Amino acid sequence: MSGYKASLLARECGGQLQGPDVELTGMAGLKEARPGQLSFLANPSYAEFLGTTQASCVIVPRSAAAEGRTLIISDNPYLSFAKALTFFYNAVKTRPLPGIHPTAVIDPSAKIDATATVGAYVVIEAGAAIGANTVVMPLCYIGQGTSIGEDCLIYPQVSIREGCRIGSRIIIHGGVVMGSDGFGYAKDGEKYFKIPQVGNVILEDDVEVGANTAIDRGALGPTIVRHGTKIDNLVQIAHNVHIGKDGVVAGQSGVAGSTFIGDRVVMGGQVGIIGHLKIGDDVTFGAQSGVLKSIPSKTVASGYPAKKHTEARRREASVALLPNYIKKINALEKRITELEKKLKDK
Amino acid sequence: MSGYKASLLARECGGQLQGPDVELTGMAGLKEARPGQLSFLANPSYAEFLGTTQASCVIVPRSAAAEGRTLIISDNPYLSFAKALTFFYNAVKTRPLPGIHPTAVIDPSAKIDATATVGAYVVIEAGAAIGANTVVMPLCYIGQGTSIGEDCLIYPQVSIREGCRIGSRIIIHGGVVMGSDGFGYAKDGEKYFKIPQVGNVILEDDVEVGANTAIDRGALGPTIVRHGTKIDNLVQIAHNVHIGKDGVVAGQSGVAGSTFIGDRVVMGGQVGIIGHLKIGDDVTFGAQSGVLKSIPSKTVASGYPAKKHTEARRREASVALLPNYIKKINALEKRITELEKKLKDK
Amino acid sequence: MSGYKASLLARECGGQLQGPDVELTGMAGLKEARPGQLSFLANPSYAEFLGTTQASCVIVPRSAAAEGRTLIISDNPYLSFAKALTFFYNAVKTRPLPGIHPTAVIDPSAKIDATATVGAYVVIEAGAAIGANTVVMPLCYIGQGTSIGEDCLIYPQVSIREGCRIGSRIIIHGGVVMGSDGFGYAKDGEKYFKIPQVGNVILEDDVEVGANTAIDRGALGPTIVRHGTKIDNLVQIAHNVHIGKDGVVAGQSGVAGSTFIGDRVVMGGQVGIIGHLKIGDDVTFGAQSGVLKSIPSKTVASGYPAKKHTEARRREASVALLPNYIKKINALEKRITELEKKLKDK
Repeated sequence: MSGYKASLLARECGGQLQGPDVELTGMAGLKEARPGQLSFLANPSYAEFLGTTQASCVIVPRSAAAEGRTLIISDNPYLSFAKALTFFYNAVKTRPLPGIHPTAVIDPSAKIDATATVGAYVVIEAGAAIGANTVVMPLCYIGQGTSIGEDCLIYPQVSIREGCRIGSRIIIHGGVVMGSDGFGYAKDGEKYFKIPQVGNVILEDDVEVGANTAIDRGALGPTIVRHGTKIDNLVQIAHNVHIGKDGVVAGQSGVAGSTFIGDRVVMGGQVGIIGHLKIGDDVTFGAQSGVLKSIPSKTVASGYPAKKHTEARRREASVALLPNYIKKINALEKRITELEKKLKDK
Repeated sequence: MSGYKASLLARECGGQLQGPDVELTGMAGLKEARPGQLSFLANPSYAEFLGTTQASCVIVPRSAAAEGRTLIISDNPYLSFAKALTFFYNAVKTRPLPGIHPTAVIDPSAKIDATATVGAYVVIEAGAAIGANTVVMPLCYIGQGTSIGEDCLIYPQVSIREGCRIGSRIIIHGGVVMGSDGFGYAKDGEKYFKIPQVGNVILEDDVEVGANTAIDRGALGPTIVRHGTKIDNLVQIAHNVHIGKDGVVAGQSGVAGSTFIGDRVVMGGQVGIIGHLKIGDDVTFGAQSGVLKSIPSKTVASGYPAKKHTEARRREASVALLPNYIKKINALEKRITELEKKLKDK
Repeated sequence: MSGYKASLLARECGGQLQGPDVELTGMAGLKEARPGQLSFLANPSYAEFLGTTQASCVIVPRSAAAEGRTLIISDNPYLSFAKALTFFYNAVKTRPLPGIHPTAVIDPSAKIDATATVGAYVVIEAGAAIGANTVVMPLCYIGQGTSIGEDCLIYPQVSIREGCRIGSRIIIHGGVVMGSDGFGYAKDGEKYFKIPQVGNVILEDDVEVGANTAIDRGALGPTIVRHGTKIDNLVQIAHNVHIGKDGVVAGQSGVAGSTFIGDRVVMGGQVGIIGHLKIGDDVTFGAQSGVLKSIPSKTVASGYPAKKHTEARRREASVALLPNYIKKINALEKRITELEKKLKDK
């Protein structure tokens, strides 16, 4: 396989070449790399493998720069790794050709850009719009009046219901359901009376949504995910939720109705946030946090109910000591009783 | 846009008009409403917006009735809001025309009512039945012998396997998988031997099932969801579970095999209930409850392991105090040692 | 309905017939069984129903053998039940005929075995391979170069992306998404830069995957599920996870990136395991465990953060006592103060 010069890759990934220029044909982890491959050292705990790796070149932080081999020095080795891998990947990936598969069922009033790709058995309803260079893979459903911007990638079996607004450079993975009805009912005696969900879903540019995630439409008004936020698999976003920009929502987390989440909020896996809360900017939630109250900006929170992480850890440590402290309390009680007896005897 | 008289809407939503009749063209929240729109005050904490809303009419509880503007007085403003919104929504929504899309693949032995709608690329197997006015949207799969009642709405990409019984007026959202095999194996040394899952799923009338939820078929006999129960997105209902009538199961909750849940049980989000339990009627579970034991009727439970909510809160409060109490115990120990020394010295 | 001799079923299920041979037409639980049916007693707590069941024959453990009726004695009644049910089920189940539905869209370079079945509206991309006797049900998507072995059953609406390796005798339930991108980004200032996910998913033989589960492809290298492991519904398996052989992952559990799980690990429902951990062999996690640290082999763990189950129970018991101990501490403090006063007075 012909490859690329390390000097070219250094430029592409924002690093500096050190040592002799070499030809590189792909990337792998330090342990797995073979001669001719590029690797990376982003986590200092893997530094031991730097001596033994067979990689012909390694992206390293400045602190790990060493003589005698080809390195790419980077201030952000993990980002440089991501950029180098993107370079290799773009060189080989095959984007489907523009055009509409003959089996796609597309309403005549839908507007499909001439550079877009629409796969087999896709159904696109009236008034929908698909932007330039966007790829809609097989077996997707795009509802009435829904618009999808440019350079999006919609994987197979995604369903986006009517009236949603999907920005540009968005990736939606397989099995995602977007714009399903919010879970809203009014109590009517013992029965539940369905509240029509007449809002929609708005995804701003550069959002990514993981496999089998569900994002409900608003009851009145939209459910919104702002610029650049990344959502993992099997996440539940309820009606009228707002998630700010550049956030991260890890797998199986859920946000209940009307909760407002600020910018740059990071949620670990399986986090749950109840409805009608306000979460500030730059909040981080540990995995499995159960959030029952609004949380101010710049908080690191964890546990159930979620509280400041330092406080959660302090309680956790106390609980670990508790069985021994219960023994101690019982022992102290005996000593007090003994003292009381002695004092009485005197 | 032409609208509807407030007096008409008052009748439709079970309220009483007060003040001058006006023309209303739609609904919005108190803060968002523009002139010509109807709004509602269901939550007393929003009462402050009643003075400033631009809405031309507001549905209010009797306690908030005030002179000088058009109001609809209701004993249940949230229900009246739901009914008014349904009225507006029904007036504009476009139900797909009855008929079978030419691309649908339907076994000749399946019975599709003449008033039903079957969308593009739907697959319906032998012996299945679709009732009057039911809409099956594109890309759904209906298995052999499965019956769906009247006035149901099956959103795109739903899969219902063989032999299931779906009642009437049921809504199933996108990506739902119903009738998948229950998770049952017999241990055979270190291996697992699959137990055929030969039961089915029964949904009674007026059930709603949220996006990407999974309801497994019974091993022997059915998995059952009774009349009127509402199930949210990404919920897991295992084999042979019974959920009583008029219940609510919020997003990402899961119920393990053979657990029996009574009527009017409400589960918050991300609740987990292990298998083979009996949950009584009118039980409420807080979000993220982990239910490891059967729970009697009329209990409000929360926490892990789930216990009475009052008890869970009491323990929670104790744990919050624990770090300070541990300091106190250590201080008390010193005082006791001091006392013991003094008493010895005397 | 014609049936099968109890003597034949005893042989099929690895048991011994006792009492007169009878004709059996199907299986049911002890309470539900009617004359002519076979039932089973696997759980001793159901022994009371042995006297009243209408079943014509019951599979029982040796300890429950009793005179006067037809029984099948088995050392592993639950396994014998599973085998007998499989025998009945195989006798009636209808496997779709081999062949490719005319609506399937299959790239000419894909290899479909002549004995395989491909359903309506299946899309199979270039270079994919489907093995002997494998059934791909309607509306599935099989990506470029993905191979599926022999005797597999792929239920409707499954999506398997490019380059995955699916073994033989594998069952994949509806709505599963396999090979979706792992959730990997490099921080670039406040933005996230997507790391291409160029690995794949490998499922070894005899794996089963439940409805709407998501298994991401590796970033570099594979995500692996070893021989015989059973995965339930709505489970999230992140990139580069390894799950050993003969494991069990119950519903809604999630495993974060690069975590290595050994053989015969059992995870209850809604378990979460964070990334980059090492879980040994023969580990069992209770439902809703939150696993934040690596766990050695042969551990039974539960709770959040997950710890040895005995330790978790001990802490749980202590916390239950805590409100009373807090009262006791306050009472002891008063007694100490009293003692101090008395001693001073002396």
